[in-house]
Amino acid sequence: MSKIKVSVVGVTGYTGTELLRCLLQHDHVEIKYLVSRQHDGTPLSELFPRLSHMDGLAVTNTDHETVAAESDVVFLCLPHKAAQEVVPNFLGKTKIIDFSADFRLSDKETYERYYNIPHQHEDLLNGRFVYGLPEIYRDEIAKSDAIANPGCFALLVQLLLLPFKGKMAHADVIAISGTSGGGRAARDPVDHPFCSGNIRSYLVNNHRHTPEILASSGLKEEQLNFAPTVGPFLRGIFANGFIKTDAEPNLSVFDNHPFVRIKDNVEMTHVVSTNFIDLSYTRGHGGEIIAQGALDNLLRGASGTAVQNMNIMFGIDETEGLNFNTAIYP
Amino acid sequence: MSKIKVSVVGVTGYTGTELLRCLLQHDHVEIKYLVSRQHDGTPLSELFPRLSHMDGLAVTNTDHETVAAESDVVFLCLPHKAAQEVVPNFLGKTKIIDFSADFRLSDKETYERYYNIPHQHEDLLNGRFVYGLPEIYRDEIAKSDAIANPGCFALLVQLLLLPFKGKMAHADVIAISGTSGGGRAARDPVDHPFCSGNIRSYLVNNHRHTPEILASSGLKEEQLNFAPTVGPFLRGIFANGFIKTDAEPNLSVFDNHPFVRIKDNVEMTHVVSTNFIDLSYTRGHGGEIIAQGALDNLLRGASGTAVQNMNIMFGIDETEGLNFNTAIYP
Amino acid sequence: MSKIKVSVVGVTGYTGTELLRCLLQHDHVEIKYLVSRQHDGTPLSELFPRLSHMDGLAVTNTDHETVAAESDVVFLCLPHKAAQEVVPNFLGKTKIIDFSADFRLSDKETYERYYNIPHQHEDLLNGRFVYGLPEIYRDEIAKSDAIANPGCFALLVQLLLLPFKGKMAHADVIAISGTSGGGRAARDPVDHPFCSGNIRSYLVNNHRHTPEILASSGLKEEQLNFAPTVGPFLRGIFANGFIKTDAEPNLSVFDNHPFVRIKDNVEMTHVVSTNFIDLSYTRGHGGEIIAQGALDNLLRGASGTAVQNMNIMFGIDETEGLNFNTAIYP
Amino acid sequence: MSKIKVSVVGVTGYTGTELLRCLLQHDHVEIKYLVSRQHDGTPLSELFPRLSHMDGLAVTNTDHETVAAESDVVFLCLPHKAAQEVVPNFLGKTKIIDFSADFRLSDKETYERYYNIPHQHEDLLNGRFVYGLPEIYRDEIAKSDAIANPGCFALLVQLLLLPFKGKMAHADVIAISGTSGGGRAARDPVDHPFCSGNIRSYLVNNHRHTPEILASSGLKEEQLNFAPTVGPFLRGIFANGFIKTDAEPNLSVFDNHPFVRIKDNVEMTHVVSTNFIDLSYTRGHGGEIIAQGALDNLLRGASGTAVQNMNIMFGIDETEGLNFNTAIYP
Repeated sequence: MSKIKVSVVGVTGYTGTELLRCLLQHDHVEIKYLVSRQHDGTPLSELFPRLSHMDGLAVTNTDHETVAAESDVVFLCLPHKAAQEVVPNFLGKTKIIDFSADFRLSDKETYERYYNIPHQHEDLLNGRFVYGLPEIYRDEIAKSDAIANPGCFALLVQLLLLPFKGKMAHADVIAISGTSGGGRAARDPVDHPFCSGNIRSYLVNNHRHTPEILASSGLKEEQLNFAPTVGPFLRGIFANGFIKTDAEPNLSVFDNHPFVRIKDNVEMTHVVSTNFIDLSYTRGHGGEIIAQGALDNLLRGASGTAVQNMNIMFGIDETEGLNFNTAIYP
Repeated sequence: MSKIKVSVVGVTGYTGTELLRCLLQHDHVEIKYLVSRQHDGTPLSELFPRLSHMDGLAVTNTDHETVAAESDVVFLCLPHKAAQEVVPNFLGKTKIIDFSADFRLSDKETYERYYNIPHQHEDLLNGRFVYGLPEIYRDEIAKSDAIANPGCFALLVQLLLLPFKGKMAHADVIAISGTSGGGRAARDPVDHPFCSGNIRSYLVNNHRHTPEILASSGLKEEQLNFAPTVGPFLRGIFANGFIKTDAEPNLSVFDNHPFVRIKDNVEMTHVVSTNFIDLSYTRGHGGEIIAQGALDNLLRGASGTAVQNMNIMFGIDETEGLNFNTAIYP
Repeated sequence: MSKIKVSVVGVTGYTGTELLRCLLQHDHVEIKYLVSRQHDGTPLSELFPRLSHMDGLAVTNTDHETVAAESDVVFLCLPHKAAQEVVPNFLGKTKIIDFSADFRLSDKETYERYYNIPHQHEDLLNGRFVYGLPEIYRDEIAKSDAIANPGCFALLVQLLLLPFKGKMAHADVIAISGTSGGGRAARDPVDHPFCSGNIRSYLVNNHRHTPEILASSGLKEEQLNFAPTVGPFLRGIFANGFIKTDAEPNLSVFDNHPFVRIKDNVEMTHVVSTNFIDLSYTRGHGGEIIAQGALDNLLRGASGTAVQNMNIMFGIDETEGLNFNTAIYP
Repeated sequence: MSKIKVSVVGVTGYTGTELLRCLLQHDHVEIKYLVSRQHDGTPLSELFPRLSHMDGLAVTNTDHETVAAESDVVFLCLPHKAAQEVVPNFLGKTKIIDFSADFRLSDKETYERYYNIPHQHEDLLNGRFVYGLPEIYRDEIAKSDAIANPGCFALLVQLLLLPFKGKMAHADVIAISGTSGGGRAARDPVDHPFCSGNIRSYLVNNHRHTPEILASSGLKEEQLNFAPTVGPFLRGIFANGFIKTDAEPNLSVFDNHPFVRIKDNVEMTHVVSTNFIDLSYTRGHGGEIIAQGALDNLLRGASGTAVQNMNIMFGIDETEGLNFNTAIYP
């Protein structure tokens, strides 16, 4: 089988380097371009001293036309807004997997309410992109050439709620993320002294991942409370949901999905450094299900899912490049 | 004013040393005996090299009769079961503040169900001890000579729910504790490698602090879900409650209680190393209140509250010995 | 005794808030002005939600003339260069304790080499300021009205070497600081994700605290190697020195210095949250002394020493306001 | 190529599970037996819930005769003393890679002095085992059927000193390890509360890895000071050496060794989760070289090196099963 020619636009952020880590151990991938506007020809080993053994790779400012023409798939690891601006350079010319929020929602108004900027491409919001959550949309992903990769909180909470789809009266969710969820952008709230030993919630019921959760769960806004929270650790998200439902969880939704594990107890270190999502469901008091779930926010919450999507788009084994068999322990 | 003669039985655990830290900066206290069965005459500075500057204090195996006779108040920092066995040595002879769970509940059956051991002193469960939560029982504490100091999770959750007492249909609570909550007893689940970067719940709806919460909140067992959780940090508990209620929070319950602060946002590092409990309440979707709270589990969650109780019992300023004015920051 | 009127210029950084924590529990201090150019009349409780219980204090942009006139002592918690600019507003008009590096060195050329900016006040470098290390210069501090408070690394290393003053052939020192040593200035190297689990040295033999160490130790530059290092924790410095000397340590230099403890083993958590410096000395192989020391970088390494200096300047007990009797444990 | 049949004795400790992680992604390995006395037939997924997706593997109490007969190589992940007792069951019958200290030294007396137990197999100390440090003894490893895998501290320090072999007058080394270096044996010094925020040295100049360092470096005991230290993190060792030498480092010793990288600056997170050792050398003052190095103590410091040794013994690519191309970041 010939190798898939892959390019990455925006490789220097946390999700870009995590993606690179996956691609480098993917047997069917050839890295074509690592693109960054700030660097043209800088060896990767110079940008990232931790990669000093990788002589052959360099980050370039290659024009997008060339990148599109010579790549089978392009990963866009850019923030929202920046992604919108470059998507037309690639769309229809090659396959795209977009890490940003710009094409996750189907509705310009919702986008603008949560992101506080105008959306430039309303025409692309009606199904041009497929939402890249393989456990829900695998068939659509397989046929698409443009994927909107989910938000990390959204991805976990959607799968946590999935076994109750259409059968929930209400859901209350708190999800605690490591500090790497904030991205590589130095500012007070991600300082080590500020984060050490701290827990705090932010944007309760106002987080940007909320509309993604609503879209797949069938919940209405007034049926969901969502408290995004940051904890004093590097990687991982641990979610706890209290779900008002009489239904038993329909765990068959996860059949044939290799990266979801149903557990008696969820522990965050069981999934960090792997592509697994661990989920548990127990019947609580008062018609509530106590649901817990965990994933690695940078891997399964971003770059690992992106690689899953690529594998599905190219018809190869969904786990390829993601065979981190065992969580790093301890 | 003459000094209060204070003794501590079981000084070598985490709550014992934290209590000592408070007592040593208490202007109205004289430390009489630090009692431990394992040590007789060992200088404190030898037991705890961090206290090497405290020449004068030693840990002794003084008989309880002498301790009771010569102390105005005795703090019992022993685990449950061990406390039961020694309580008769002190009760009625001096004032007692008991850190254990042995006299917190009013009902032998509930005790035995949660603690899995027989209770030896059913006669002492009917009001002989006052539950030492000053924000609820201050008047009773003032008149009592025997206090059952609350459990750390229980203390925080009770105050979190207090503004809705009698007006809740249901409450779902998750509370995340630091690893010092496990006490000083080396075993696998508190190993540093096991705890680093980990979050996990345990004993969901089965934690021993549950009946304390039910007793003061007026909730029935089937109205409460409680998920005790351990996180990768040393000190502090962060609690998040989703409370089903139409009522607005009655914050006047905290009037004249110097250690409760109502905040817009709760952050754990705002309370760790202080005796404060921070609480916040916001109206969520679907008739739910999103309530958050935090405290330092060893200080306000145990030893600080014990000192509050002592201050109230002796009619002195409730904040004496607890004037840690500012949380250590960063 | 009437209270000392104290003002703080630059109260919002880490050392400023730590100083405030000390001053608030100092029995002989009255806080006069908390000065910051960015805030005029902002309640402290608004600037720092963790201080929401402190109603009475506000941060103001009071002119320096007024501050000097109405204060018995002014603490300048400003970075170098900024300190130089405001020192003339206070010098000779009130007592000054300056946290910056601007008046620690006696030599304009050395200053300019290490700090890469011109020094505006060469005239003030010849003894106008006393170097504020009480264990060495207590008598001079007592007579001075202008103190240059030491750098945190410099303070620890100087005391580590002090018992061998004049008798060392060579010293090799590595000192590992917590991330709070970097100050409150969000930037990549202090991000939580960057610091978590990381250790790295920086500015080896080129750190700005080096000339302070040389000045008091009597070592020449070619006799000292100094590797400043950052570790994955919040507070504390742990120093390890290999000292080439035939002499035994002269520990009498620490007689009557209440904040230095000589230990068999140094542990960082024994000093963090206290004003102690712990030191140990053992004879190694090949004529080397293995010296270890630790302190809390924000407390004893900055604000605690500043309070010691104030106490000495005003002739009151050196430990006043610093009676954190016990390190927070665990 | 037919697969190498591999068995592991003592798979439940930290090095055992880390070894398993490597073997599971090794293309030329077939796992034959995972042996543990405590478990017979327990699925791995039951012992380690993090491995719940690995249905096929079980831990058994298979007799050693069978294990030896059916395995091409056996890894012994047992503590010292326990290893001695079982080595005769395997030696000469199959290839052995022993993680313990029992066969690392060539001298019974030194062993007994450092380990405080008698050595039962003096006859096996004279070259029967090859010391498994590939960067020094690769040729001997290739020809041997019995390897003594190095200690983690020893491995790093030996490579740190190697470029100066025979040319050092003296070396002073401090090495800081994460808490996973203590192994999976719950006890006070590895408790999370005890380790959080702490740094402490132990067994200075008396650590059991010392004789391994002396053996390969050519240093005499009186020429080396070694301060083993534990820091508040999970994985990794960071070593700092001050080396008295006039020689320049002979970096050619690392030619053709794929897992050693010479860097300008060493950072611990650049190597944790990889099999790399990063080293840096700078000329300090007074004829000293400042040498720094780092590795992942469980991977390169134990199980990764063991896999390297296996690869060399079987004549396959040294990096096989160790292609963790990129350190997990952040």
